[in-house]
Amino acid sequence: MNFASDNVVGVHPDVMAAIAAANVGAQGSYGADEYTARGLDALAELFETDIAAFPVLTGTAANSLCLAAMTPSFGGVLCHADAHVMVDECGAPELFTGGAKLIGLDQPAGKLTPDGISDRLAQFVRGEHDPLPSTVTITNATELGTVYTPDEVGAIAEVAHGRGMRLHVDGARFANALVSQGCAPADLTWRAGVDALSFGGTKNGAMALEVVVLFDRALAEGFAHRRMKTAQLLSKGRFLGAQLEAYLADGLWLDTARHANAMARRLAEGLDAAGRVRLPLPTQANEVFPIMPAGLFAHLEASGAHLYEWPGVGPGTDVIAEGEVFARLVCAWTTTSEQVDELVAAVAGWDG
Amino acid sequence: MNFASDNVVGVHPDVMAAIAAANVGAQGSYGADEYTARGLDALAELFETDIAAFPVLTGTAANSLCLAAMTPSFGGVLCHADAHVMVDECGAPELFTGGAKLIGLDQPAGKLTPDGISDRLAQFVRGEHDPLPSTVTITNATELGTVYTPDEVGAIAEVAHGRGMRLHVDGARFANALVSQGCAPADLTWRAGVDALSFGGTKNGAMALEVVVLFDRALAEGFAHRRMKTAQLLSKGRFLGAQLEAYLADGLWLDTARHANAMARRLAEGLDAAGRVRLPLPTQANEVFPIMPAGLFAHLEASGAHLYEWPGVGPGTDVIAEGEVFARLVCAWTTTSEQVDELVAAVAGWDG
Amino acid sequence: MNFASDNVVGVHPDVMAAIAAANVGAQGSYGADEYTARGLDALAELFETDIAAFPVLTGTAANSLCLAAMTPSFGGVLCHADAHVMVDECGAPELFTGGAKLIGLDQPAGKLTPDGISDRLAQFVRGEHDPLPSTVTITNATELGTVYTPDEVGAIAEVAHGRGMRLHVDGARFANALVSQGCAPADLTWRAGVDALSFGGTKNGAMALEVVVLFDRALAEGFAHRRMKTAQLLSKGRFLGAQLEAYLADGLWLDTARHANAMARRLAEGLDAAGRVRLPLPTQANEVFPIMPAGLFAHLEASGAHLYEWPGVGPGTDVIAEGEVFARLVCAWTTTSEQVDELVAAVAGWDG
Amino acid sequence: MNFASDNVVGVHPDVMAAIAAANVGAQGSYGADEYTARGLDALAELFETDIAAFPVLTGTAANSLCLAAMTPSFGGVLCHADAHVMVDECGAPELFTGGAKLIGLDQPAGKLTPDGISDRLAQFVRGEHDPLPSTVTITNATELGTVYTPDEVGAIAEVAHGRGMRLHVDGARFANALVSQGCAPADLTWRAGVDALSFGGTKNGAMALEVVVLFDRALAEGFAHRRMKTAQLLSKGRFLGAQLEAYLADGLWLDTARHANAMARRLAEGLDAAGRVRLPLPTQANEVFPIMPAGLFAHLEASGAHLYEWPGVGPGTDVIAEGEVFARLVCAWTTTSEQVDELVAAVAGWDG
Repeated sequence: MNFASDNVVGVHPDVMAAIAAANVGAQGSYGADEYTARGLDALAELFETDIAAFPVLTGTAANSLCLAAMTPSFGGVLCHADAHVMVDECGAPELFTGGAKLIGLDQPAGKLTPDGISDRLAQFVRGEHDPLPSTVTITNATELGTVYTPDEVGAIAEVAHGRGMRLHVDGARFANALVSQGCAPADLTWRAGVDALSFGGTKNGAMALEVVVLFDRALAEGFAHRRMKTAQLLSKGRFLGAQLEAYLADGLWLDTARHANAMARRLAEGLDAAGRVRLPLPTQANEVFPIMPAGLFAHLEASGAHLYEWPGVGPGTDVIAEGEVFARLVCAWTTTSEQVDELVAAVAGWDG
Repeated sequence: MNFASDNVVGVHPDVMAAIAAANVGAQGSYGADEYTARGLDALAELFETDIAAFPVLTGTAANSLCLAAMTPSFGGVLCHADAHVMVDECGAPELFTGGAKLIGLDQPAGKLTPDGISDRLAQFVRGEHDPLPSTVTITNATELGTVYTPDEVGAIAEVAHGRGMRLHVDGARFANALVSQGCAPADLTWRAGVDALSFGGTKNGAMALEVVVLFDRALAEGFAHRRMKTAQLLSKGRFLGAQLEAYLADGLWLDTARHANAMARRLAEGLDAAGRVRLPLPTQANEVFPIMPAGLFAHLEASGAHLYEWPGVGPGTDVIAEGEVFARLVCAWTTTSEQVDELVAAVAGWDG
Repeated sequence: MNFASDNVVGVHPDVMAAIAAANVGAQGSYGADEYTARGLDALAELFETDIAAFPVLTGTAANSLCLAAMTPSFGGVLCHADAHVMVDECGAPELFTGGAKLIGLDQPAGKLTPDGISDRLAQFVRGEHDPLPSTVTITNATELGTVYTPDEVGAIAEVAHGRGMRLHVDGARFANALVSQGCAPADLTWRAGVDALSFGGTKNGAMALEVVVLFDRALAEGFAHRRMKTAQLLSKGRFLGAQLEAYLADGLWLDTARHANAMARRLAEGLDAAGRVRLPLPTQANEVFPIMPAGLFAHLEASGAHLYEWPGVGPGTDVIAEGEVFARLVCAWTTTSEQVDELVAAVAGWDG
Repeated sequence: MNFASDNVVGVHPDVMAAIAAANVGAQGSYGADEYTARGLDALAELFETDIAAFPVLTGTAANSLCLAAMTPSFGGVLCHADAHVMVDECGAPELFTGGAKLIGLDQPAGKLTPDGISDRLAQFVRGEHDPLPSTVTITNATELGTVYTPDEVGAIAEVAHGRGMRLHVDGARFANALVSQGCAPADLTWRAGVDALSFGGTKNGAMALEVVVLFDRALAEGFAHRRMKTAQLLSKGRFLGAQLEAYLADGLWLDTARHANAMARRLAEGLDAAGRVRLPLPTQANEVFPIMPAGLFAHLEASGAHLYEWPGVGPGTDVIAEGEVFARLVCAWTTTSEQVDELVAAVAGWDG
């Protein structure tokens, strides 16, 4: 019953097989290999447009590199108060940008709204004493398991572009958002006005695969140097390329995401039926965030379940009372119905 | 006949098998997995001392992180003019250190000498207008295929420590240096006064494995944060741990290095016998640097050989004449006698 | 009626005279002059201890340099949500520290409390994904015209030191805080546990004089380089030294601060008596923060008064209603009773 | 006999008088004052074009800010091996640019040549492993007292622009270069292709006055923020504005530069006539660089003269023999004929 994270699990067999299969003969290093070429071609086809795309090694790197390409050192980045870039990356964006300022907005359900962004921008009254508002970044699916629709993304892009800012999407769980919306990748990104995307594969079945996807080609200028300077250019790049190729082949990435999302829905429904917890947020991707009595949380841990008490500003749609825990349960591509049902049974069986 | 680099080849089967074998069940993420624990234990045992060690994803990252731990933003780093940190990392050390100054010394055979370092330090006469001399970094085996002996390392450490500086070794080809010297890992590092080592595995049979090894434990303070902030902490860390474990098991890393070195010696001897090139440097590791007529270089390329004209300050022990090329030929753990002999035959067969 | 800021006014005649008097003959550059030597001696005497002190050119530089000396690039700095370092310096601390994370706490009256700091520190549960808590910085007098007592400073220092963090004081208005408390400079700084102080003179009668004062001498290591690297070392340093000397001579700095504080008290009392505004904060230094109807604010501006609507998180002790303005009025060393009375009369005379 | 530097002397009386005269009443802070407005207007008129200009506090800041506006973090800057930005600024350019790489070229007489630049650029063969060649910076007058002609500047600009790079001029001694050439300021800058200039006043009679002059207006985007973030925005900005206004008024800055240059010529001629030294470089600005026996150098110091043994790569036009000293003698706007003659007499009087 490991619901701690989608990075505690392994690699999809197809991806692993592709890695092993790439281990033959000599290949150009630093991304000049045939696997990377094919993988990037497939990615461009997927997005139905001409992209500049750069495989990197971690999600933090993808995000920080995108923000650095979009934000001058004296710039400001608006994000959610609980965004990964704000609270989970030890300030990597500040390093990669040369010291830009991240400004976290505390809004409900892990999502920024156009009004929330506009209100915060109205507070930039200090001229050059404020950072220059440069970038808006959202996470889709969000850190709270919710999903922005294409329309919501578009409305945020409109606000951002109207202020001369650019829009980035942290897509560590982009696949989960996409299958949740059932739209085309383009709809959830560049057609909605997204300028750059961190396209994540690691949480969804890859080993270490994050791709910086630049829809605004102006951002690509010098990006190869930027990636190298931040030590994100793998010498035996074929092993990233092979992952990408396998991840996209035959819609594997959509299958794994659909499965994880389905498990999360099953979990949410089970929890709801069990009646011992509140679910303050819709379950739109692969994560479930129940509010539960601390006793139940302890019971689950004692039952062998792995889950986290979620830090941060909370759901914003409900209040965590004294004695309650705001918990996160993550379903992965490996999660089984049995594991879900076992967790639900443990909840139902609590005699607290 | 691919002698372009030791990173154009693949991964040793034992390492690949270990990666695949690690792909079972849930494991703690971010390095909190059993493979990493065992791999780091094996590394500590190897070095016969209590080390702080941190797997990272690229050699540039390992070097830059070491330098950042050793050098304040206002510090200076002495290195060879052709050092990888100086000319091949797009200024990553400058980024990771917050702007420290790298100062390249042009000395023969890719090696710094104690006197060369002392002479350069004597030029620090500008007080705070100069950077604060903080770190000496050497590469072993060097970028020119030569190797520092334990005594040579020790003499450099003595100069550095005498000035309150620390000593780093870029060990992207540490295994090649080690088997060349036939000494213990400790002899070539901490017993000789080395404070930090970039322990490289990628060029010698791993997929993506570089380990920051800190002998001076004071450098470990906050290092986990430092690695995270630079986006070098892999979420599915087990796959680094598994590589490390397999790389060290049963001396695999020494076997692959011995093989590559032996191929380089065979190549050097063959070239020497062929009589069409000059070898300005001893072949002490897995690289051979002949000076050859440009026509021969073109002939080799036309014959299907992959090799580089080597940029930089030159061997320092011989002069490249007009019409000559200073070439680099790298042998890898995959290089075969047949490939070597084929290359030598191509040289011998040149009718230039 | 210019109450816009204490930096819209000029330089005290004594300081200006000292600058002019220093303009004779040759002097060592970069601070190696007799004026600087005497000024720094006077400063050390004032603080009754052995300090390391470095004149710099702007308050932002003093703060950012202090924070950089106290905080590694991967560190975190706790400050008030409205602190100058957080909202008025365009991210200079992030630049100078190499990307450290500033974390603003929204607490009443512009002041941090030990409990507020402890509560926030309790949220550092993410290990290396969080920045390393390194520094607490407070402003005294605060951005809201309130003042920390020595005991309050001491209590904060205790919390900080208990967590291995250091305490910095932004003393852009240190003189105003000091005369407000009527204690010795040492009492409000190192005796209370302060590790570093930005000692400000510019707002209180100097031309451009901020001094980094390091009580924790370990912070002084390399600090001269740090100042140079950030372009804060004045070549004709005598003109900073002369300012410092004159600023401290015969308690000039205390006189100017006492005057400004007295004018602020007169203003607060006048406003209180006029009965058209609320004063949500005590007037402890040289700034007054009335809440007033927007109509009155407009009336004052129309009457020729210069003042600001104050952005930020508000006083925390009262609520700004729709149609109200939270205003800041700053008294300087040049402010006269007549100017104060004129402003009060304008308030009283409003027919809104 | 202080020939140590042009920053050991004081401020021209006219500049000092202007500073004192500006000390009346309230003025907008942070550069929004009437003095700054008039000073910048005068500067634009001087350059006969529409410039974006930003007063800052030190020459290191002006240089580093210019380079930061022209060079991405992953960029490279070509400069002379002895350039101030390379050897005298403790790596400030690396900090301000976010880690760009400065590459010093060792060429004669402190001057870069188009061919020297082209040759170095031809060595950028490593793709993204090299920094992206972004900026060429020259110093005029140079660190060795020589001067680039408009044609020489233009030829360098052509090479730089041809490679998509920009050209910066460190004009710490721009006035000395200008009067040496006897041309218009525009001829030596934007008409010759210069994109940005550090316009220095401090060494030539001001107190602390350096102005970033951007001819390429694209560089001005966000520059106000950039200046603020680097802590170079003076709150009582009127005192910079007043210096600038006085410095330019009635050609004061040209008069002081002409005087200093004339004194240097007198010194060079005197030294030449005295016959005890070699002058390996033409005296084109306000500095003289004799090669002299170490005994004579010691004799001069014993005679009370202040001068420096000049570190660095040497004149490139002559060889410093064992027992010889390469010395620098700087004439300032305050230097008198008597001081010059006294120094020459001391040379002539040496009985070594």
